[in-house]
Amino acid sequence: MANKEVKLYGAWGSPFSSRVEIALKLKGVPYQFFDEDLTNKSPDLLRYNPVHKKIPVLVHRGKPIAESLVILEYIDETWKSAYPLLPEDPYDRAMARFWSRFLDEQCLLASWKAASSEGEARAKLKEEAHGHLKTLEEQLKRKKFFGGDSVGFLDISANFVAHWLVIIQEAAGVDLFTEDKFPTLWKWAEEFRCCPIIKDNLPEKERLSAHFKARFGGQNASK
Amino acid sequence: MANKEVKLYGAWGSPFSSRVEIALKLKGVPYQFFDEDLTNKSPDLLRYNPVHKKIPVLVHRGKPIAESLVILEYIDETWKSAYPLLPEDPYDRAMARFWSRFLDEQCLLASWKAASSEGEARAKLKEEAHGHLKTLEEQLKRKKFFGGDSVGFLDISANFVAHWLVIIQEAAGVDLFTEDKFPTLWKWAEEFRCCPIIKDNLPEKERLSAHFKARFGGQNASK
Repeated sequence: MANKEVKLYGAWGSPFSSRVEIALKLKGVPYQFFDEDLTNKSPDLLRYNPVHKKIPVLVHRGKPIAESLVILEYIDETWKSAYPLLPEDPYDRAMARFWSRFLDEQCLLASWKAASSEGEARAKLKEEAHGHLKTLEEQLKRKKFFGGDSVGFLDISANFVAHWLVIIQEAAGVDLFTEDKFPTLWKWAEEFRCCPIIKDNLPEKERLSAHFKARFGGQNASK
Repeated sequence: MANKEVKLYGAWGSPFSSRVEIALKLKGVPYQFFDEDLTNKSPDLLRYNPVHKKIPVLVHRGKPIAESLVILEYIDETWKSAYPLLPEDPYDRAMARFWSRFLDEQCLLASWKAASSEGEARAKLKEEAHGHLKTLEEQLKRKKFFGGDSVGFLDISANFVAHWLVIIQEAAGVDLFTEDKFPTLWKWAEEFRCCPIIKDNLPEKERLSAHFKARFGGQNASK
């Protein structure tokens, strides 16, 4: 059976780990979750991902795959029939891949840096993050989800924007993603968080909030 | 016809642009090449890739695709029957994707930074680049190419190592990729550069060398 022996080495609060969990749940693939302590990584994780030593790692039939976007493609290709994540058309697939990379390399990075910085550097990074979110919002146009009528590859990749960003900005005291600035993206985020399988598989808001408040404690003054 | 109207906005000396050219040639897809002046980019390039404003951009039937690895996947999915780039097995595909990202995000970046730096910083970056090349070499094991018996997705992604790296290290005066340190990877690079279609589609060594000598001029002392 294709879904025999699926293990996921992840971390409860990581959006990258959550992407993989959402994909497996949407596909209906049972798996065993290993919640890694990122300050003291398990020998299994280090053995399975010796190159980056990072979560998430999916282990299927004893073979490890790292990097969340690579894992999503693997899941889509291995469990083909249930809930396709990528669209069928090669151009639409290319766009989902392009924007997923954009999310990781530009959007997520600038947002995290803005939350982690202060003063003038923060103001500059905040502006940069706003620019990226605006670009992302324009991709939605009149669609309900990036994937069209239902959640797809790019929606899952954008889980950070939908669930984490508001919590992080609150903890760090910086306005990155607000309803008035990004109304279409805001509506998408609400829809995404309410989707049947997704709403039960996002980390609890209060727990995440406490985690990031501890991380960003003391920075709240510099809006 | 699927191969009607294929345009590539690239630059003669770019390994990213070269990846796309190699893929199109291996697939036998005719295309029109627009050699961009990267110091004065064309309005077409800026219109087709407004997000990153970078080459390469493939335009197929008027629709643009950016990012070389995303373009390679698009080419493989659009012209399916001729010369498959990615392997068939989902796990092998995941590995090709994982190592291609590793090449761009670790290997290429550290090598370029080592070539662009001096003194202690260079020594540290050189060591880092060596570590990445060692990791890459271990992936080859006893295979002729990363793709097995013939050049595949990962070989094309590694074109920078096969052709550019030796030229850059010579121009910058730093030992990054040498036969004694990486004999297996060195042999692979030779085999890759000699492949029928590839050998006619790599930028001329002398021209590249002059280009990088101008770029790194003056740094040759700090080996």
